[in-house]
Amino acid sequence: MTDAAFSLAIEATDGQARVGQLHTAHGVIDTPAFMPVGTAATVKAMTVDTVASTGAQMILGNTYHLMLRPGAPRIEAHGGLRRFMRWDGPVLTDSGGYQVMSLSKLRKLTEEGVTFQSHLDGSKHMLTPERAIEIQCQLDSTVTMVLDECTPFPATEKEAADSMHLSMRWASRCREAFKQRDGYALFGIVQGGVYPDLRAESAAALVEADFDGYAVGGLAVGEGQDLMFEVTAATTPHLPADKPRYLMGVGKPLDIIGAVQRGIDMFDCVLPTRSGRTGQAFTRYGTVNMRNARHADDHRPLDESVACPASRDYSRAYLHHLIRSDEILGMMLLTWHNVAFYQQLMAGLRKAIRTGSLDSFAAAFSADWAQGDIEPL
Amino acid sequence: MTDAAFSLAIEATDGQARVGQLHTAHGVIDTPAFMPVGTAATVKAMTVDTVASTGAQMILGNTYHLMLRPGAPRIEAHGGLRRFMRWDGPVLTDSGGYQVMSLSKLRKLTEEGVTFQSHLDGSKHMLTPERAIEIQCQLDSTVTMVLDECTPFPATEKEAADSMHLSMRWASRCREAFKQRDGYALFGIVQGGVYPDLRAESAAALVEADFDGYAVGGLAVGEGQDLMFEVTAATTPHLPADKPRYLMGVGKPLDIIGAVQRGIDMFDCVLPTRSGRTGQAFTRYGTVNMRNARHADDHRPLDESVACPASRDYSRAYLHHLIRSDEILGMMLLTWHNVAFYQQLMAGLRKAIRTGSLDSFAAAFSADWAQGDIEPL
Repeated sequence: MTDAAFSLAIEATDGQARVGQLHTAHGVIDTPAFMPVGTAATVKAMTVDTVASTGAQMILGNTYHLMLRPGAPRIEAHGGLRRFMRWDGPVLTDSGGYQVMSLSKLRKLTEEGVTFQSHLDGSKHMLTPERAIEIQCQLDSTVTMVLDECTPFPATEKEAADSMHLSMRWASRCREAFKQRDGYALFGIVQGGVYPDLRAESAAALVEADFDGYAVGGLAVGEGQDLMFEVTAATTPHLPADKPRYLMGVGKPLDIIGAVQRGIDMFDCVLPTRSGRTGQAFTRYGTVNMRNARHADDHRPLDESVACPASRDYSRAYLHHLIRSDEILGMMLLTWHNVAFYQQLMAGLRKAIRTGSLDSFAAAFSADWAQGDIEPL
Repeated sequence: MTDAAFSLAIEATDGQARVGQLHTAHGVIDTPAFMPVGTAATVKAMTVDTVASTGAQMILGNTYHLMLRPGAPRIEAHGGLRRFMRWDGPVLTDSGGYQVMSLSKLRKLTEEGVTFQSHLDGSKHMLTPERAIEIQCQLDSTVTMVLDECTPFPATEKEAADSMHLSMRWASRCREAFKQRDGYALFGIVQGGVYPDLRAESAAALVEADFDGYAVGGLAVGEGQDLMFEVTAATTPHLPADKPRYLMGVGKPLDIIGAVQRGIDMFDCVLPTRSGRTGQAFTRYGTVNMRNARHADDHRPLDESVACPASRDYSRAYLHHLIRSDEILGMMLLTWHNVAFYQQLMAGLRKAIRTGSLDSFAAAFSADWAQGDIEPL
């Protein structure tokens, strides 16, 4: 399905929170939305059909990983990332900047861009705003992100301002380089560290340049939930009401709920998938380590309240056995469950906003979560 | 579905080959059948639903692995191996003897049985014929295998005879210990190395004891395909025509075809699953290493002739990328394809026997296989 315009149709609000539908070249997604992370053209340990079965409608790909392997021209020749990995829905790709800083070697940042060596083979690469746009165009990303510098935490106000100003100059170059196509989008990224004035200045600069959506970047980097919420709340009022807002790399279930309450529409995070591979399961009553011996004789399903075969059809004893035995199926089932859990949370948030009951939904979820574990036998 | 009796209904023959249906307590399976190996209560990197989708109707579990982890009483309390792992169809379990010899530490074999230390934690265990039966009963195995000694290769005739005679005494003890239940079965295992007279003697001893099915053991241990075929051909005529015959641990596609031509009904082998995890794909034109760089830009599916999403829906370029990136999804998809390929081979064999065209089926398959690789771009 192709929609002519990339647009967010807001259908209801509850406080700052909004529920709606994001129309894209590759389908419509319900917001607030959580995008599972498909780092290297795969949501790890899941088929795309299983990902779709959880209710996920949009996924994220990592430009850094894909540009190094298999390479953007190779994916372009294949018809883009969506065809390469057989994902029918829209994809969002990051700019690669974050992973350059966290994974690559011999980084050197200048006004022009950033040079680095691949963590895989030491090969040299350069990422500039123009190059980041070109690569994401080769990937045929539904949503392209501008190249930015993720301001480290902690940073002084001067450091955060300098970093943000660089990101804003890069954002302008990205806006310039991006070729608009129907149903495709370029998102700007608000930076400014934990300083509300810098965030407001950054948001104003981006809105002036007119992006198709706006991300809040540089959070979930160690500042803690209180500060994350504070900065988010100080940022969203400066963003246009009719454009999607995306909080990058967030987060835990309570982070997401709080951010939705502060006006965020889109999320991504490796937590559900990465946790699944290490035997950690998300439940309404907190996370639970399936490796723990107390599950060995527990014949109950992991979480019957989640509409997912991995959550309902297998016993905790069996999942425990698989994880203890380092079986791939253990990683597959827990990842599947976790992604389904996150999607169910998003569906719950959307319903709560529609019915004007977001605060009570959040309170009830928080109370259950505070129990810190699934109920004992 | 529960059938009162465990029985093989032979529906057609072609030379020594037979096609039929094996009725068990846990469903009917079409023979000749290939059983994917579910070592530790999981066919590695597959859900049971995916296993079933390939056409596999029966799977194998390894007593050695399961008795050590999670332990047979734990699985018994869970309702048996089938319920534990959610496999609806019948399961066959080996006796554990083979893995004791290949995996465990400090083995000591006596007339009574074999003592050993777990390769996992060094804990001490003893496996006797009676204990092997007890454990498989706890696992609720549809088909229980007798404890035997897998005669090493090479072995002198004296060594092979002594080993076989021990296995026959153990087989009698197993027969004694096994409690017959409707639709469940105990299989004897013919030993005797590469010596036809010993194989005939072993078969006669087992037939005298009256088992529900007969396995040919001690092959695929390095003797080569010619000798394997020779020993198989020398053994099956000594087995009752109306009981299933199972060639343990075999094998490659051409091994299976040749053994079916020599009257074998059941097979198991780790090849399709293990190869899948290392990037090796089975095709009609031989095996192919998906890690090889020549697949990087090949947009064709792996094998459109196999009725499996993993074989048809993903490009070789994508599978290559996943394998090169050590992505779990690469292992999942190649395992799935390989298991589907094996099931499609078995379906082809069954059809060929029904239509009296097994030899031409075998010749055509062998000719394609001899090409040694999938067709080049």
